[in-house]
Amino acid sequence: MSSKLRIDLNCDMGEGFGLYKSVADEELLKYVTSANIACGFHAGDPRIMDATVALAASKRVSIGAHVSYPDLVGFGRRQLKVSPQELITDVTYQIGALEAFCRRHGTRVSYVKAHGALYNDMAVDATLSQAMATAVLEYDPSLAVLTLAGSPSLEVLGAAGVKTISEGYADRAYTHEGLLVARSKPGAVISDPKVVSSRGLALASQQPITDIEGSSIYVSCQSICIHSDSPGAVTLAATLRATLEEAGIFVISFS
Amino acid sequence: MSSKLRIDLNCDMGEGFGLYKSVADEELLKYVTSANIACGFHAGDPRIMDATVALAASKRVSIGAHVSYPDLVGFGRRQLKVSPQELITDVTYQIGALEAFCRRHGTRVSYVKAHGALYNDMAVDATLSQAMATAVLEYDPSLAVLTLAGSPSLEVLGAAGVKTISEGYADRAYTHEGLLVARSKPGAVISDPKVVSSRGLALASQQPITDIEGSSIYVSCQSICIHSDSPGAVTLAATLRATLEEAGIFVISFS
Amino acid sequence: MSSKLRIDLNCDMGEGFGLYKSVADEELLKYVTSANIACGFHAGDPRIMDATVALAASKRVSIGAHVSYPDLVGFGRRQLKVSPQELITDVTYQIGALEAFCRRHGTRVSYVKAHGALYNDMAVDATLSQAMATAVLEYDPSLAVLTLAGSPSLEVLGAAGVKTISEGYADRAYTHEGLLVARSKPGAVISDPKVVSSRGLALASQQPITDIEGSSIYVSCQSICIHSDSPGAVTLAATLRATLEEAGIFVISFS
Amino acid sequence: MSSKLRIDLNCDMGEGFGLYKSVADEELLKYVTSANIACGFHAGDPRIMDATVALAASKRVSIGAHVSYPDLVGFGRRQLKVSPQELITDVTYQIGALEAFCRRHGTRVSYVKAHGALYNDMAVDATLSQAMATAVLEYDPSLAVLTLAGSPSLEVLGAAGVKTISEGYADRAYTHEGLLVARSKPGAVISDPKVVSSRGLALASQQPITDIEGSSIYVSCQSICIHSDSPGAVTLAATLRATLEEAGIFVISFS
Repeated sequence: MSSKLRIDLNCDMGEGFGLYKSVADEELLKYVTSANIACGFHAGDPRIMDATVALAASKRVSIGAHVSYPDLVGFGRRQLKVSPQELITDVTYQIGALEAFCRRHGTRVSYVKAHGALYNDMAVDATLSQAMATAVLEYDPSLAVLTLAGSPSLEVLGAAGVKTISEGYADRAYTHEGLLVARSKPGAVISDPKVVSSRGLALASQQPITDIEGSSIYVSCQSICIHSDSPGAVTLAATLRATLEEAGIFVISFS
Repeated sequence: MSSKLRIDLNCDMGEGFGLYKSVADEELLKYVTSANIACGFHAGDPRIMDATVALAASKRVSIGAHVSYPDLVGFGRRQLKVSPQELITDVTYQIGALEAFCRRHGTRVSYVKAHGALYNDMAVDATLSQAMATAVLEYDPSLAVLTLAGSPSLEVLGAAGVKTISEGYADRAYTHEGLLVARSKPGAVISDPKVVSSRGLALASQQPITDIEGSSIYVSCQSICIHSDSPGAVTLAATLRATLEEAGIFVISFS
Repeated sequence: MSSKLRIDLNCDMGEGFGLYKSVADEELLKYVTSANIACGFHAGDPRIMDATVALAASKRVSIGAHVSYPDLVGFGRRQLKVSPQELITDVTYQIGALEAFCRRHGTRVSYVKAHGALYNDMAVDATLSQAMATAVLEYDPSLAVLTLAGSPSLEVLGAAGVKTISEGYADRAYTHEGLLVARSKPGAVISDPKVVSSRGLALASQQPITDIEGSSIYVSCQSICIHSDSPGAVTLAATLRATLEEAGIFVISFS
Repeated sequence: MSSKLRIDLNCDMGEGFGLYKSVADEELLKYVTSANIACGFHAGDPRIMDATVALAASKRVSIGAHVSYPDLVGFGRRQLKVSPQELITDVTYQIGALEAFCRRHGTRVSYVKAHGALYNDMAVDATLSQAMATAVLEYDPSLAVLTLAGSPSLEVLGAAGVKTISEGYADRAYTHEGLLVARSKPGAVISDPKVVSSRGLALASQQPITDIEGSSIYVSCQSICIHSDSPGAVTLAATLRATLEEAGIFVISFS
């Protein structure tokens, strides 16, 4: 295995609100290299954003704006039919708000990742991907967008001139076509840290993984997503990172 | 009257929400030199912010973040007891969100003005002024803060190292101590455009004005506020600007 | 024309928020017999709800809960994918909140009407209609639901045991199948008060109207909707009501 | 100790939001007799309200509307200067929303308790207590209001004709004047379940308790508040209830 192999580990952060805190963030920041920070539309508030940015900056972890449909009560997990102009302006607002906390703490927003329903919708809806591209390019063309490996979104964003980072999932099953198996299906979510680590290693090593039907597929990705809200997320992140490093993979932010 | 005299005219902008629009903005932008743009906490939403910034940028008007307590339903006019940390982070969030739209439109946030209850509270509460200073200095030390002429806030902000711009009111009565007469008192608000213009000219010319008791007082200010929500705001702005320019005052943004 | 013919006229009311007021409500209440009052999810706040209920009660107009997806900034006009449980509980919350103001003013909620995107979605989605039925029946089985004439929703609600009121539009074009022509299509909205009145009279008289293709269709309805946000809404309402009464139609609430 | 002695135990419930859940509610409902349920202004959403009402109804626990200033992000703990009309209408809205869920589950709202900053403000501000009285009497004169034992609020509400229930705290220190010691002072909060239980027994038995200065004071109350967000709240509630029942106190709702 070549020492040139490298992978980013990204994780959602700052997903509390008011008194409600997301408690594992500090621990997770020991293992991940990119922090997707909620911007107040699905979770997060100015205090939590400030504290999470400060923490990520102190750990030298890359910071991404985790942008969402405006739906606090639904945690951004519900589809909302927005116009391109609505998406462009909502995304711009959220990136800017997060950037302000980055300035306070001597860092910057390096990338954007859509959250929840917007992530899923954008992966398949070219209009939304195009709106995202417009938002990002007109705000800061150097920003990357993290999006689902193998999704049409990657192409639309890339064609528009956006720097894209493809994302794979070590804890989710894939269809033979290389798409995520819906969470509602049996076997969709993998929770055994060893299996997750081994799949993560395959993803990072550009080796095939086993799809839901038992065949081999190849998922090309530059970042692996760790779900911060899984039970045992910290253990899983620690195990995955150790596995990758032991195998000689360079775990480092893409930015 | 020396040609060196100069004054800024500032006005609240973008104070709509969703379907509700603030209709006079485009007209008012012909006469003012600084636009205090709502950032979504008392009014404004990402669409309105984007459109208002675009308009202000196209007219080469300076852009200020009009920051507020979080109180959409109360239009930011109700006192809310916030901690310094809450104010710092709420202000940071709002400036950043507005700055993002400025980036889209090739401009920047030049200053900050507190809105409504926060404006009034900050004028007299050193803790709030200190929190505002922290927010501004840690975000961008080149930002000015527009605050009430003669208020303790000016001193606190200035002592903290913030660039301050003092603000006078041509359409409001003053007490003999140089403070605004409360809106609830008779005679507090002046609506005759001629009287307003003549008081505005006195303010800009560093001449005394008549206080509520009929004596002369001197209010030192670098910017005059025009209320966009007054009936006849556009006429008033036009009349004031013409009066100032005819008198040889240079009407120009402070930034 | 038999004196037994009767029709209800309904209109959206209380669609302001905070400082933003819906100004025509008091005038419109002279002509309509049912007021669909916003409950705070797409518009309306507790002050506006209280004032609107007081006004409707004083005019002895029937009061309906105008329930919406939770989307203040989008005015409830954007589709939001909600679960049945989310719809049931959101509708229950809104009806209860409005009912409280009715109790203050000695009246009651008589019916429910979905607003905006929820109205359109419910008209065609049996799952949403079933959820609405559950919400209404478990809150108060005597409540009626006002829904689009000719829509599947009428059947689903009726089969579930809900009292339904079918609604026609005098100011909207119909397809030959008896459905509303989308607003985006040319000719979809009719603004001439005379034409609207004549179509309203036909609807109320159980006479055919002309569809968008020029053929005759028959739309069976018990209530006609007047859009309060159309320009000239008051004139249109006054003209329609006068036309109906001159023709001997009894204009009266269905409840 | 006479078998006629009786006391109510009340507790805040349903204080989650969206994905954030208040996990101890079901356990606490085994020990308390009155549930103060959040109505969406400081916490709670329609799903949580529905589930909490269902749970309280199934345990035959009295249900109170736990009304708050509108401040989700601040959890209703920040003072907001509201007008009497704003308080009346906000309280009416919240009671009605909760009542709707009670109707679904075959029960009713029995009382109202102010939350957080509103509770503290109302205890000392007669204008707020008078507004609360108006809200309650015009909604349902049979509703009780739970308020701080010894506070001016009890008198104002009582004089206005509201049924009041005085509330004592077994886990908080009292001043010699019978007021709560501010949480920020040392010794203000008592966490030892045995001490809390013994103080609770004294309160319920109409016996004196020791104030912060070590003297005896007498706090007359009909209900004891259990803080659901204390660590060990369930243990504390269980211990207190057992202590009361062993002493022959009848633990029963006041309503």
